[in-house]
Amino acid sequence: MSAHFSRNLSMLTDFYELTMTNGYFREGKKDTVGIFDLFFRRVPDDGGFAIMCGLKQIIDCITELSFESEDIAFLREKGFNEEFLDYLSSFSFSCDVWAIPEGTPIFPNEPVLTVRGPIIEAQLIETLVLITFNHQSLIATKANRIVRAAQGRPVIEFGARRAQGYDAAVYGARAAIIGGCASTSCVLASQKFGLNPAGTMAHSWIQMFDNEYDAFAAYARIYPDNCILLVDTYNVLKSGIKNAIKVFDDVLKPLGKRPVGIRIDSGDITYLSKRARKMLDEAGYPDCHIVASNSLDEHIISDMLLQGAKVDTFGVGERLITSASSPVMGGVYKLSAIIGGDGEIIPKIKLSENVSKITTPGFKSVWRLFDRSSGKAIADVVTLYNEEIDDTQPYEIFDPEYTWKRKTVTNFIARRLTKPIYKSGKLVYTDYSVSEIQHYCQRQVEHLWDEVLRFENPHDYYVDLSNDLWNMKHELIKKCSE
Amino acid sequence: MSAHFSRNLSMLTDFYELTMTNGYFREGKKDTVGIFDLFFRRVPDDGGFAIMCGLKQIIDCITELSFESEDIAFLREKGFNEEFLDYLSSFSFSCDVWAIPEGTPIFPNEPVLTVRGPIIEAQLIETLVLITFNHQSLIATKANRIVRAAQGRPVIEFGARRAQGYDAAVYGARAAIIGGCASTSCVLASQKFGLNPAGTMAHSWIQMFDNEYDAFAAYARIYPDNCILLVDTYNVLKSGIKNAIKVFDDVLKPLGKRPVGIRIDSGDITYLSKRARKMLDEAGYPDCHIVASNSLDEHIISDMLLQGAKVDTFGVGERLITSASSPVMGGVYKLSAIIGGDGEIIPKIKLSENVSKITTPGFKSVWRLFDRSSGKAIADVVTLYNEEIDDTQPYEIFDPEYTWKRKTVTNFIARRLTKPIYKSGKLVYTDYSVSEIQHYCQRQVEHLWDEVLRFENPHDYYVDLSNDLWNMKHELIKKCSE
Repeated sequence: MSAHFSRNLSMLTDFYELTMTNGYFREGKKDTVGIFDLFFRRVPDDGGFAIMCGLKQIIDCITELSFESEDIAFLREKGFNEEFLDYLSSFSFSCDVWAIPEGTPIFPNEPVLTVRGPIIEAQLIETLVLITFNHQSLIATKANRIVRAAQGRPVIEFGARRAQGYDAAVYGARAAIIGGCASTSCVLASQKFGLNPAGTMAHSWIQMFDNEYDAFAAYARIYPDNCILLVDTYNVLKSGIKNAIKVFDDVLKPLGKRPVGIRIDSGDITYLSKRARKMLDEAGYPDCHIVASNSLDEHIISDMLLQGAKVDTFGVGERLITSASSPVMGGVYKLSAIIGGDGEIIPKIKLSENVSKITTPGFKSVWRLFDRSSGKAIADVVTLYNEEIDDTQPYEIFDPEYTWKRKTVTNFIARRLTKPIYKSGKLVYTDYSVSEIQHYCQRQVEHLWDEVLRFENPHDYYVDLSNDLWNMKHELIKKCSE
Repeated sequence: MSAHFSRNLSMLTDFYELTMTNGYFREGKKDTVGIFDLFFRRVPDDGGFAIMCGLKQIIDCITELSFESEDIAFLREKGFNEEFLDYLSSFSFSCDVWAIPEGTPIFPNEPVLTVRGPIIEAQLIETLVLITFNHQSLIATKANRIVRAAQGRPVIEFGARRAQGYDAAVYGARAAIIGGCASTSCVLASQKFGLNPAGTMAHSWIQMFDNEYDAFAAYARIYPDNCILLVDTYNVLKSGIKNAIKVFDDVLKPLGKRPVGIRIDSGDITYLSKRARKMLDEAGYPDCHIVASNSLDEHIISDMLLQGAKVDTFGVGERLITSASSPVMGGVYKLSAIIGGDGEIIPKIKLSENVSKITTPGFKSVWRLFDRSSGKAIADVVTLYNEEIDDTQPYEIFDPEYTWKRKTVTNFIARRLTKPIYKSGKLVYTDYSVSEIQHYCQRQVEHLWDEVLRFENPHDYYVDLSNDLWNMKHELIKKCSE
């Protein structure tokens, strides 16, 4: 764990969080307790599900939240008064937080994280919570698509140089591993998260020597146990693979070592991989892996495999680390209730002419129903927090928009997805290693039907509201529209 | 400047930079001097030009490069030997660096940054240099498109929550300002770069009160000098604007204050803005600005203005901070020469079956030719470093691919674009403030012809090679292909 990478991100917030919190303070509302939900409205790439990711770093941000003297001085310049600045100086987090664990498949319009506490605190953390969730869930979701396209072949995350900034490289690599990547080339991410970094050589290595053979031979002598040679600096078939085979024969064989692989980074990789496979097999290296890289994503990988590409490992860069075909996760953080003086929950709603932007009010929880015989997830149900779904009884679910679409579920297991993370500001959650989260993620994705896993036009997984929640929401819409 | 945001990023590198540098070390090549060029091959969004950005942070990364004991311990575990680890422990940067200043329009296939020095050092910085350039140039380029679409109306960068990680929010905001944004909502970016943060309220502020009027009134009382009210929580026309006008009358007028604006964040903003403008004018607030936000980009803004939207300020979030329609800047860092024992420059090339991936070898510099009468940029010419372009004489330029396309330029000024940044590891460049770079950028963009500025199908600006460079490159291609 690299200590010199950590920093205090408290000032990484939108200015309106400060104008609002100062406003609550001035209006005597600072101790009003509010409930905020984090949710998203659309799956990136119009996929069937997203992967929850970033909870560990949300916890780090909250734990480290503190305003230092230079921050206070900056805010004083911007016109905030001393009483508010004193409050910030001695800021201490006292909220309750619930969240769905990292690695879990998540769906639109269900609260994946809920904060309950003084609105001034809950509001202040909005931007940091959103950046963290939006970024890491985006990349974990994309990585999971790419890994599924590779059909069991390892995918290595190679994207640092094209990431949108340093954190995007480091936390993007974390998210990629959680989504299922076998490893990352990013050294700092490997150091921070206990992973084995991957990487061998760039074209510059080959260019640095008088010829390709000498470059390969030098590499094989230095790294006889991890010899992967990049074969496309001059010409893959006429030069690269031939020289690689020669070096395997000349350098590795006398040492009793087997080559690990060759890498092709340009050209028509499907075609080249088939020719390369044949050449390697004929030379007595059927165990030598072929690694492909160069602007890959789930669609190109699927297409390559459909055409019989002989690729054993995929190195995926820019299109994974930026989720290039869908680079925004639109998580939002919305007030859903405030707690009245008498402890009563007063639900709050945001209406909109865009119907999809109307929020679901109230203090809520999320349940997932699994079919007992197949183990597959049937539906998620958003309930009021104090509701319990009794899975010993038949349970009726219905579409919250087209309420005549109804279905009674039997023989199922109901699990509450949201777990307590903070209780009155105290961290109560034990986090898991990145590898543990990766394994958990893989198991959870296996609970989804193939129809939800599809890349194109996946089935819309049911995210329903409980009867009580639906009624409360619609009464409130009616009241606000009057 | 927030000290607690800085950190040592030395371990943020691809693992192959370490396997290669260790290899150079082991091969006795550590003192071989190499020349590496940073360039890109395609302008994001297929635009006519990109904006150079991130040089300040590249300098910071290089200046702070050092491997600490925990880093050395990690690398020891990965199998590197003590001699190499000792070298890293006492790493000190001794290269020369040249670069095109931040804010300059840049074009494909010209070196925007060149590093000359011991290959082991020049190789080690590759990943950090690329992340920094690729990220910030991408966002500055996108911001410049959006700002030009707004035709003089201020654009505020609002995207932190959708940025791909913390650095993407902070340095993305920096790049957005350099590209021309008037301000950012990001507090940390404002603090770090000496800017005024922008922001007023979210929907949660309105929801926190019993009704919209009370929320607006409270805000106007607290911020009478910066009163911008968000009018779309319930219904823009039936409720939001009416309550805003009432509060302007009831709260601001008695204080002798004028409202600053209203903000519309959903619905058909073009339509709503026209209705809002009429209502505000009729109520005696023709000076009250209308701010629009909600998934805007250059295309939506152009379309809104074409349809006569009455918007004075645009708040642009996710599509700017991620460059959503084109989220990858494909900068690469390639070996172009090594220096032989006798000081001779030995040019190096990377061939490829993709012709566009063939590199331009040699130690090079970039010149821009400006027409003396119009002031417009005519072409960039990549030359050998020791060439001078004499602008008192006619100069023939030619297309490096279709060499029969030739043109003799007269009455022009030739400027060398690349400036010295480091000399033998010593920083020789004085950087500019973000606002200075922003102004410089604006002036440089004004030197481009309208045909290059177009969003769709812009004219391909000429990036030519000097005659000597062209000849050297083609001799080398011939030699390597034999």
